[in-house]
Amino acid sequence: MSDDRDRLCGRLRQNGVVQPLLTDLYQITMAYAYWKSGKMQDHAVFDLFFRKNPFQGEFTIFAGLEECLKFLDKFHYSDSDIEYLKSTMSSSVEPKFFEYLKKLNAKDVTLYAIEEGSVVFPRVPLIRIEGPLIMVQLLETTLLTLVNYASLMATNAARYRMVAGKNVALLEFGLRRAQGPDGGLSASKYSYIGGFDGTSNVLAGKLFNIPVKGTHAHAYITSFTGVEELQTKTLAHKQTGQVHDLLALSSTYRESIASDLGALVSEASDGELAALISFAIAFPDGFMALVDTYDVKSIEASAKRQAHVVSLNLKNKLLTNGANKSAQYSVRNGPIISETTPPHKNGFLRRGELGELYVRSGLLNFCAVALALNDLGYKAVGIRIDSGDLAYLSHAARDIFERIATKYNLPWFARLTIVASNDINEETILSLNEQNHKIDCFGIGTHLVTCQRQPALGCVYKMVEINGQPRIKLSQEVDKVTMPGRKIAYRLYGADGHALIDLLQRCCEDPPQVGQKVLCRHPFQESKRAYVIPTQVEPLHKVYWERGNICHPLSTLQEIRNRVQESLKTLRNDHKRNLNPTPYKVAVSDDLYNFIHDLWLQNAPIGELS
Amino acid sequence: MSDDRDRLCGRLRQNGVVQPLLTDLYQITMAYAYWKSGKMQDHAVFDLFFRKNPFQGEFTIFAGLEECLKFLDKFHYSDSDIEYLKSTMSSSVEPKFFEYLKKLNAKDVTLYAIEEGSVVFPRVPLIRIEGPLIMVQLLETTLLTLVNYASLMATNAARYRMVAGKNVALLEFGLRRAQGPDGGLSASKYSYIGGFDGTSNVLAGKLFNIPVKGTHAHAYITSFTGVEELQTKTLAHKQTGQVHDLLALSSTYRESIASDLGALVSEASDGELAALISFAIAFPDGFMALVDTYDVKSIEASAKRQAHVVSLNLKNKLLTNGANKSAQYSVRNGPIISETTPPHKNGFLRRGELGELYVRSGLLNFCAVALALNDLGYKAVGIRIDSGDLAYLSHAARDIFERIATKYNLPWFARLTIVASNDINEETILSLNEQNHKIDCFGIGTHLVTCQRQPALGCVYKMVEINGQPRIKLSQEVDKVTMPGRKIAYRLYGADGHALIDLLQRCCEDPPQVGQKVLCRHPFQESKRAYVIPTQVEPLHKVYWERGNICHPLSTLQEIRNRVQESLKTLRNDHKRNLNPTPYKVAVSDDLYNFIHDLWLQNAPIGELS
Repeated sequence: MSDDRDRLCGRLRQNGVVQPLLTDLYQITMAYAYWKSGKMQDHAVFDLFFRKNPFQGEFTIFAGLEECLKFLDKFHYSDSDIEYLKSTMSSSVEPKFFEYLKKLNAKDVTLYAIEEGSVVFPRVPLIRIEGPLIMVQLLETTLLTLVNYASLMATNAARYRMVAGKNVALLEFGLRRAQGPDGGLSASKYSYIGGFDGTSNVLAGKLFNIPVKGTHAHAYITSFTGVEELQTKTLAHKQTGQVHDLLALSSTYRESIASDLGALVSEASDGELAALISFAIAFPDGFMALVDTYDVKSIEASAKRQAHVVSLNLKNKLLTNGANKSAQYSVRNGPIISETTPPHKNGFLRRGELGELYVRSGLLNFCAVALALNDLGYKAVGIRIDSGDLAYLSHAARDIFERIATKYNLPWFARLTIVASNDINEETILSLNEQNHKIDCFGIGTHLVTCQRQPALGCVYKMVEINGQPRIKLSQEVDKVTMPGRKIAYRLYGADGHALIDLLQRCCEDPPQVGQKVLCRHPFQESKRAYVIPTQVEPLHKVYWERGNICHPLSTLQEIRNRVQESLKTLRNDHKRNLNPTPYKVAVSDDLYNFIHDLWLQNAPIGELS
Repeated sequence: MSDDRDRLCGRLRQNGVVQPLLTDLYQITMAYAYWKSGKMQDHAVFDLFFRKNPFQGEFTIFAGLEECLKFLDKFHYSDSDIEYLKSTMSSSVEPKFFEYLKKLNAKDVTLYAIEEGSVVFPRVPLIRIEGPLIMVQLLETTLLTLVNYASLMATNAARYRMVAGKNVALLEFGLRRAQGPDGGLSASKYSYIGGFDGTSNVLAGKLFNIPVKGTHAHAYITSFTGVEELQTKTLAHKQTGQVHDLLALSSTYRESIASDLGALVSEASDGELAALISFAIAFPDGFMALVDTYDVKSIEASAKRQAHVVSLNLKNKLLTNGANKSAQYSVRNGPIISETTPPHKNGFLRRGELGELYVRSGLLNFCAVALALNDLGYKAVGIRIDSGDLAYLSHAARDIFERIATKYNLPWFARLTIVASNDINEETILSLNEQNHKIDCFGIGTHLVTCQRQPALGCVYKMVEINGQPRIKLSQEVDKVTMPGRKIAYRLYGADGHALIDLLQRCCEDPPQVGQKVLCRHPFQESKRAYVIPTQVEPLHKVYWERGNICHPLSTLQEIRNRVQESLKTLRNDHKRNLNPTPYKVAVSDDLYNFIHDLWLQNAPIGELS
């Protein structure tokens, strides 16, 4: 692929639906009212921020900035946009307004932001945007749309990464359950940024250069009924090129492994064997097999058999009008294993039970084909489990792999990849961790992309200054009071290198200095104050857009992804833990504190007693 | 706008990201394995269906079909797609496969579906798709993506419509909280289909011809500090054209209404008055005002005053190093109203308290400007409330409107529109209903578009037949067992015109006949059977795509929207109620029952006792 195409697809192109009309009508209605009242050129400052970290957590990852900049870059109403607005808005709107809109662009706007991929906290503006009132107002909804889901998704992904640990691969499998096509693409992109290793979404791979992964579905397995369906049974040796009968080899191995495991070949599905062989022939170097299509484990098989028994019994009743044969069937076809709880107490498998308990079809067939492939110079990749008790199944699979590794002297066999992918969320992973699971990779769909714990991030976009005059929005809920004026944010670091506190100051103040005591105040609780002596002071905001240009080089997706992990490392663990994390402090300078509260008093009405 | 443009924007165009690569990689991996093993032309039948209605409900609205058909229509791998796949897939993939893919299209596929906008139920295939195995497999993820969120959203919207009742307008306001730009567009489109009246999303309006609505945000109000900022204060009379001073007129009315209500003009915000006047000048025929920017009601104002007291006290403490003045401040600035619960017992406002309790700024200013506008021949539209106790506030606003209507003999004033828009969900509306709210329109965002109660619909896509051979997917969970073979679905209606039951039959069976007894069986519980004598038999599936053509005229969005309401009407109320609805029955014919269970026994392994 040429660099040009890469740039076109990956970096500069943006989903066509991101355009100035992707906004709430009231922005355009207000724009007209501003225009009509001569306020459109008033110099306004807006902050984009959120008030609460998502997912009951105490941090958020900021994402979506690049999309915002691309949006500013191409902001322009097309002729058909103008035509549509004319047809939709009140007939009282003067035609000159539409001429004005037609020429409108974002070149008079200045955008400051925190670096994309940074850890961020409530109330600290992620973006500060300044410029003509009409223009910054018109940007609101689109910027919120571009930042809200992106940040929510990146944060969610980062949380999954933290609970999974760095040695486990994470794949995003959520396209089919996302909010429409582009919801799926955004999920892929921002889960990669948040720390996932890849996606199943091919278009996301193409557009964003994200690794894509995937093998086959249950339908592939069930599309084969038996080995007679195999049109090709042979495969050439990787090195020698000599052609071998993969079916014959696999069948021989299957007999042998079944006997070792005390399993019965007659219970294994031949359709499944055929499917796996055909897949191995197609991808001899990438053989990864779904192993749970038929009877994942005997416990489940027995449950299924019990269901048959019921069905048989009922059938019988209907046929014979009597119930006298039920008992007989129950005895003959009842569960062959008495355990009802998975035998992985203390996270360990009781080996003696393997033969009875374990996979009689999928894993048996997989191992047989994997050993046959090995004879032809190919190393299998691993298995995917998509149902059942994932901790138990991973233990059992790892155990079998280890036993085969020993018996056939193939150390790599013990390290075959185990992928798990059924309805996984943060809690599942935490529970699997406690059970010492043997899973190498999680494929995560629905709960990742829909952000199960909290489906929306509540970023808001508030006016804080107009024509040099600060604006405060009062509310009965103190949390909803906005902090007026242009503000600069600094992150102060402590002696151990961890981030201590984010400090908001008025733009006119001197920045905090390394080694010098700075008074940090709670923005609304007067008595909460602390002196901080920072070992490092990081200004959080940079200019990203000025005079019609993106004025800070855009990071690659990979760079943003790395920044997420680096940024998270600066946070103390207690801010990041899953249960009851400690809130990270966001403070204001003494100057800003007084500024806020003086303005508050000026703006709040004083009641009268009568 | 020309018809051509309409067609381009509204009907035939599709978001550019909907393309064959918008899929999971494993579909393409499987495609290669099918191709490699010579199975790609096997004739396969897949069902797309869901297993459980969303939102703890007992019905679902099927949506997304048109998008699926457009996708089939343009299915084609571009050169750059092929190039990307070559670079991504294993090097063992033969070049001829890519040549094959390049020529692939959906013309050999046949798609049957239920009409978009119909009420549908678990297990009944929404779509049945037949054709070459490789092709129908490649469609899976994209079809699921297009149907899952669309149907979830339409169902959610239909539920909001049901609880709101048909006399209340519903507007979708969710763009800023949706899953990215296209998530927002899909939300607008499918909430309109489900029964909403419009959206704030301008692009959705343009693309789908949905009514768009919106007035202004709090920022508009706070951008004005006083009446001196008004560059224009005059407005011409609608009929006579005579220019009047709207500010002077409004101010006079404000004095008069304040005195009627026992409110103090000094407590009302002049910035707000200026904002409303400027907005009225811009939209004299569409004057709709946000009234909660300053002090929605005194109870809240008092809470805010209490916050000041605390703040003042603390400040005082700091200044004087003593606490002796606290009591004094508490007395002087404490709450001027003693009520702590909203005074709308039994849904009625105690009128005597109005003067003390009610809106001292927003509503006062709105009524003043609305009466001034009336003098100039314009009728105001109404107000929007975006915070606080919506039931109470709507009662109080309606009460004021009625009193003004009486005093000034303006009957239309009593019917001014009240829009409410703060964090609304199904439960809020139900609670507001119980309180006899006076709201005419709800603007609903986050909870609507993120589908709060259940953020994803679990549609699946399962192979049910291959080369004429039925396929069954067994599972330990009976709910997950798929129903094999090609099936036809009928909806049987009872004597009262309501839908009684959906009946699945094998394709080879004769359809049920009106007036003739038909045996309907539970698919898995043998003893659950019933005879039904239908008064009407509706075949649910139609061919929509055959031989490369959309073969059934596509409905307009409006037609689909109407179908939703018509279709819901055929359902008994107990299936639709919010709390503990009765499940609607989905049955199989006796023939299909036996077919399923025979196949089940054939495919399930038989254990051996040792």
